[in-house]
Amino acid sequence: MSSNFYALIMAGGTGTRLWPVSRQTQPKQAIELVGNRTMFQHAVDRLNAILSPERIMVVTAREYVDALEAQVPDIPRENFIVEPMARGTAGAIGLAAVHLGHRDPEAVMAVLTADHYIRDVDQFCRALAAASQVAEEGHIVTLGIKPSFPSTGFGYIRRRERVRQVDGFDVYVVERFVEKPDAARAAEFLASGLYSWNSGMFIWRIDRIMGEFARQMPDVYAQLQEIETVLDTVRQTEVLCQVWPQVRKETIDYGIMEGAENVVVMPVEIGWTDIGDWAAIYELHQSDEHGNVVVGSSHVGVDTSSSFIRGSKKLIATVGLEDVIIIDTDDAMLICARDQAQNVKLIVEQLQKDGRTEYL
Amino acid sequence: MSSNFYALIMAGGTGTRLWPVSRQTQPKQAIELVGNRTMFQHAVDRLNAILSPERIMVVTAREYVDALEAQVPDIPRENFIVEPMARGTAGAIGLAAVHLGHRDPEAVMAVLTADHYIRDVDQFCRALAAASQVAEEGHIVTLGIKPSFPSTGFGYIRRRERVRQVDGFDVYVVERFVEKPDAARAAEFLASGLYSWNSGMFIWRIDRIMGEFARQMPDVYAQLQEIETVLDTVRQTEVLCQVWPQVRKETIDYGIMEGAENVVVMPVEIGWTDIGDWAAIYELHQSDEHGNVVVGSSHVGVDTSSSFIRGSKKLIATVGLEDVIIIDTDDAMLICARDQAQNVKLIVEQLQKDGRTEYL
Repeated sequence: MSSNFYALIMAGGTGTRLWPVSRQTQPKQAIELVGNRTMFQHAVDRLNAILSPERIMVVTAREYVDALEAQVPDIPRENFIVEPMARGTAGAIGLAAVHLGHRDPEAVMAVLTADHYIRDVDQFCRALAAASQVAEEGHIVTLGIKPSFPSTGFGYIRRRERVRQVDGFDVYVVERFVEKPDAARAAEFLASGLYSWNSGMFIWRIDRIMGEFARQMPDVYAQLQEIETVLDTVRQTEVLCQVWPQVRKETIDYGIMEGAENVVVMPVEIGWTDIGDWAAIYELHQSDEHGNVVVGSSHVGVDTSSSFIRGSKKLIATVGLEDVIIIDTDDAMLICARDQAQNVKLIVEQLQKDGRTEYL
Repeated sequence: MSSNFYALIMAGGTGTRLWPVSRQTQPKQAIELVGNRTMFQHAVDRLNAILSPERIMVVTAREYVDALEAQVPDIPRENFIVEPMARGTAGAIGLAAVHLGHRDPEAVMAVLTADHYIRDVDQFCRALAAASQVAEEGHIVTLGIKPSFPSTGFGYIRRRERVRQVDGFDVYVVERFVEKPDAARAAEFLASGLYSWNSGMFIWRIDRIMGEFARQMPDVYAQLQEIETVLDTVRQTEVLCQVWPQVRKETIDYGIMEGAENVVVMPVEIGWTDIGDWAAIYELHQSDEHGNVVVGSSHVGVDTSSSFIRGSKKLIATVGLEDVIIIDTDDAMLICARDQAQNVKLIVEQLQKDGRTEYL
């Protein structure tokens, strides 16, 4: 990879649909959901072949930073960029871009996620290398995921003509970004063959993204400039804490991508899975002959099939169950129909409403 | 009640279908399954109105006696008859009859169970009073339960002509006892109107039951006689421990009732329920507007109905469940389809096979 290529791992999310393992103090990216590595560790591991730890940046929230730092001891502490409070992905990415531009004005930056699983890491790395070439030329590159079903849970990217090919990857001009569609439109999108899922992974030159901030979000750009002037000075924390609460909350998609110039999409097939809920995690595992996945738990089952059982210490016995998710933790357990895994967030909402903060 | 009426509560069973609450060291009768009293306490409480504690006998196993004694401090310690090992209901009842006959040769004895629930305690007491009158006259009386469905899980009693009426209770000559039938025969039995379920509750004079032992099980009768000669002597324990291992295992139904003379059945409607499994216990509770029963647990549910949740300390969250039984204990939890509650015994069998005695 070129010597000015850097990755930024977005690690600030929460993940209420993965309760009771995911909690406020232990968010989705900080927990082991696939194998014996956390999602954040997976996100770092994926880059091993192409980036040294010094060139991996992380943006996260104050309350998660200690846990995340401990998980990746090779990444220098100064590479962790901490938001005083969440301001949406636009703010988080802008803050990281300012830090990175301060360090290397020529940087090419890949914005990556910690809450997706990528099965084909080799292909992912090849895609990043190809995308970095395209980004070097001044394009804003998005990695698009080939839709495997008419999902209503992702944003879509509609492409226009192909502009080039790099190392076997096609690169298309983006016609437009589309927010999460309803089922009928999602089916149309899938049938047309012209749409990719928006993976939330972007590759661009620092000067290009800062230029887009200046043009499309001049207020935030000014705030970012104010922060940049004091970076690496004693006033850094003070200014950040003054400025940040005033930054408006916005997503990178709505704030920048939809109106950006010279945006291209590079569709990739890298075994990408959104780790959105327990049903998705079940799908990532190899199941036994009854279709069951049992993780870290002592399980005894009678007439149990197509179920996901993740335990802690307790013996879990099941009788006559199909398509059920069972998640046991020290203080709370979830039993959920597999096709209703999305609704686990309603449990978290109910606990919030009831003021049962000990379980949040 | 007449001054020589006594009750014997059979409290020696185990109850593997109520795992994980019921364990080897904490059998079905020793645990709270309905309300805040154990099944054994319920069995004693039911007799409050008609019997003083001094006239309630208990037969149980060595390993349960301490726990059971502690639950009913009013019952004298000497009223607990302890079998050195299980020898079936014939042996247990014979041993208790020998003790009781030694104490009161004129005794009328009601054999009662600790593993059934009886909703209408008043009617139950009236039935016992009526049955004791019939027993005084020399009949072997069985309490029959009017079948509410074609159960294949109970024995049946077929009646012949009515011989008398006592306090509003009809008393019929027993034509025969029938072991657990298959579904087709159970349906026939129900349709005929001539059958009662065998409740396992019997009322008789001591001399009558000992006479039946002498006639039908002379070997056991001789062994019981040998024990009787040393009751209240220093040799009591020694002789019991010598004799008891040789007593043959037999049920009272097969060993005595099926061949007994002058047997009558008194059908009763007392809200009798076999506490055979968790589904039966669910049925005994008043459910909420979603059909759920939640016992002693902190539960939060989304789209959950017709389910039984019994917890200990842990928060139990459910999403998208119907007809499920969830039983949480400190070291083990059960999640079971409500219509497969009978199969919980297969879990216990599996644990036995795996040598996981800590969960038994």
